[in-house]
Amino acid sequence: MSDHRWKEEIIELGEMGREDSARVTRYEDLDLDKGLFRLEGTEKSKKSKEYIISRMEEAGLEVRYDKVGNIFARKEGSKTGTRAVMSGSHLDSVLNGGMFDGVLGVVGALEAVRRMNDENFDNERPIEVVVFMGEEGSAFKKGLLGSDVAVGKRPLEEALLLTNEANITLDEALKGLGQLGDFEMDFSAIEYFIEMHVEQGPVLDREKVPIGVVENITGITWVTANINGQENHAGTTPMSMRIDPLVAASNIVLLASRRANEMVKKSGGSTVATVGKMVVKPGAPNIIPGSVEMGIDIRDGIEKNMKRLQTEIIHAIKELAEQYKVTVTLDIPIYHPPCPCSGTVVEAIEQAAVDMGIRAMRMNSGAGHDAQNVAQKVKTGMIFVPSVDGVSHSPLEWTDWEDIENGVAVLTSALKQLSRI
Amino acid sequence: MSDHRWKEEIIELGEMGREDSARVTRYEDLDLDKGLFRLEGTEKSKKSKEYIISRMEEAGLEVRYDKVGNIFARKEGSKTGTRAVMSGSHLDSVLNGGMFDGVLGVVGALEAVRRMNDENFDNERPIEVVVFMGEEGSAFKKGLLGSDVAVGKRPLEEALLLTNEANITLDEALKGLGQLGDFEMDFSAIEYFIEMHVEQGPVLDREKVPIGVVENITGITWVTANINGQENHAGTTPMSMRIDPLVAASNIVLLASRRANEMVKKSGGSTVATVGKMVVKPGAPNIIPGSVEMGIDIRDGIEKNMKRLQTEIIHAIKELAEQYKVTVTLDIPIYHPPCPCSGTVVEAIEQAAVDMGIRAMRMNSGAGHDAQNVAQKVKTGMIFVPSVDGVSHSPLEWTDWEDIENGVAVLTSALKQLSRI
Repeated sequence: MSDHRWKEEIIELGEMGREDSARVTRYEDLDLDKGLFRLEGTEKSKKSKEYIISRMEEAGLEVRYDKVGNIFARKEGSKTGTRAVMSGSHLDSVLNGGMFDGVLGVVGALEAVRRMNDENFDNERPIEVVVFMGEEGSAFKKGLLGSDVAVGKRPLEEALLLTNEANITLDEALKGLGQLGDFEMDFSAIEYFIEMHVEQGPVLDREKVPIGVVENITGITWVTANINGQENHAGTTPMSMRIDPLVAASNIVLLASRRANEMVKKSGGSTVATVGKMVVKPGAPNIIPGSVEMGIDIRDGIEKNMKRLQTEIIHAIKELAEQYKVTVTLDIPIYHPPCPCSGTVVEAIEQAAVDMGIRAMRMNSGAGHDAQNVAQKVKTGMIFVPSVDGVSHSPLEWTDWEDIENGVAVLTSALKQLSRI
Repeated sequence: MSDHRWKEEIIELGEMGREDSARVTRYEDLDLDKGLFRLEGTEKSKKSKEYIISRMEEAGLEVRYDKVGNIFARKEGSKTGTRAVMSGSHLDSVLNGGMFDGVLGVVGALEAVRRMNDENFDNERPIEVVVFMGEEGSAFKKGLLGSDVAVGKRPLEEALLLTNEANITLDEALKGLGQLGDFEMDFSAIEYFIEMHVEQGPVLDREKVPIGVVENITGITWVTANINGQENHAGTTPMSMRIDPLVAASNIVLLASRRANEMVKKSGGSTVATVGKMVVKPGAPNIIPGSVEMGIDIRDGIEKNMKRLQTEIIHAIKELAEQYKVTVTLDIPIYHPPCPCSGTVVEAIEQAAVDMGIRAMRMNSGAGHDAQNVAQKVKTGMIFVPSVDGVSHSPLEWTDWEDIENGVAVLTSALKQLSRI
């Protein structure tokens, strides 16, 4: 059975990523204390990448490291002068992360190539399997780092000077592990890109649909608000003499949640708004807070909607500041517009699912992915497979083996289609 | 000028309480980094108490330590068999506290006795000046500790086994400093008690009234709520699939504040409700919180109102839990009913102010005081003097010297009245 290859690889990469090298083959084996720590610049990264490279070479691919540590592995096409089809994801994990995030897209792309080999499929276009470096930002602080540099969004020199917790530069770390090459991918020589990934959300699992076809990678913006009131004794300060920043902040939490819900109901879209960070100081039950620091995360597949909600929230914060006499410092530390996927790629993925009788639904990606960088240069799409209970970035992350097989099959079929047009 | 005595004592006790022994004589000298650290069981406490004892002895008082480290200093009365009049407060401070909190009531009571001495006033009843041990709870964790034991609310043995940060028992600490005696105050031999204290709130300062006559020491209750939802990715979890404990918690903040405001408007009472503690976990902007831990402080001078608001809030929390599908663990770690002051003492204080042409207003104490313990046994009242901007438990705590003189004058006059009836 050909699926033994990818299953074995996912299990072994999981084993290599865990501190205690636990071998997890079933959902029941998962353990909250036994997540992956495959950070860039570590021995775990070295071992895992050497493992995948040897598998790539076994599949007959030509493997090159680029100047920022991305891996590109090429299967030539039969028609010279055609632009390539690319697929892949990343191998690095968050701290104490799960065994499918990233790994799935790498192993899936490699498996797709092997299946083409097995059936002597004639891919006219070359196939490139990619492992992007540092997607999670868990070691060198910046997410999407390898793809940022590869598509020219971030200067190489700047990236190589980033440091990890041990104050080692990315340059030193990658050199030390033998992960720096001199290849440079020319993205104008790539026609299509597909990244397969776990959904990291609950939709497919709840809806019992095995394949998600991503239409948009969500836009994301953060609004941070530092709200200052007047710290005071909770017993001796009458209600009428208070300037309580937490009362103002609580209004903001409710407003953001209510408006996002309303927008989804009205448009059927993917709007989300979250207050995940709220630091109340000094934080004693008997002291009226002096300050509240909060971060609001706003996402939408449609930029107009994202902007609108952001504007509404900022406007409301300013009104609340007046109403409650608090002072507010606002900042927008993050603003990434949504990234639409290519219609051609979306349809190729859907067609592949239809051909195999596998149910699929269109959806947005609520998380960021290397695909959004590649999409700046290349017609791009993403395939999602279900995350059990929507759990991700956790040792408890799980995708059923059948669902992975469906994803690999759809990916293989879509890549085959795209490699001949 | 007789006021040189108390002013010098307040300034010198401040000096002894600061790490750097800074001498602060004017508001302009205050420094946020130079507060008092006069914790029980420290050399600062030893020095300060020995200082006040020597001043008490100079004033002809008989000084005794009781079995938990309270100091009682007695001026005999002219009429044998009469019950005494007591006055005083505490000398311990919070960490980085102010120079007036507690100290004022001790020095004020001593000064009142000295003024009686100066004018050969014939006090029929004995006068007891008291320094309660460990009012703030900053070293041995439990507030009102000395008065709790003195009035029999807490067993002596239990109190002596409490430990401080250095894991030293109260017994060892007090013995080491020579602050344990074998006196036991019989509160049935006390007829009246007055504690003078800084208001620790903004009312007198804002209203420009120099004397507050306390009618009730506020009741206080805490409700703590641990709200658990479902930690999730802020981008990949649609609004309709969230169980967000912070949205539930924000409703509670607003409800508590709104209802307290409404109750004050309706009854003109002293109701306050505060959420001062709110810990949101894990606390990243891009993660829907998994849990919120909050503490709600509810106070009122009227127990019925306090209970009513508490019941309403608990009821609302339960309703919100259902509405938002969060689970909530509720606790009521603190419940102290309000403590009404004695009409006789309240009127004696008011009469004293009227006699001297000093404006006074009735008010509630929003903070807890040793007086609430004494009031369980003895007819009790409190005199408040203005706190500049309502600031207390801070190095920036200040009360103008003129206001202290007014307080000392009113206290002296009231004690004189009460010592002859």
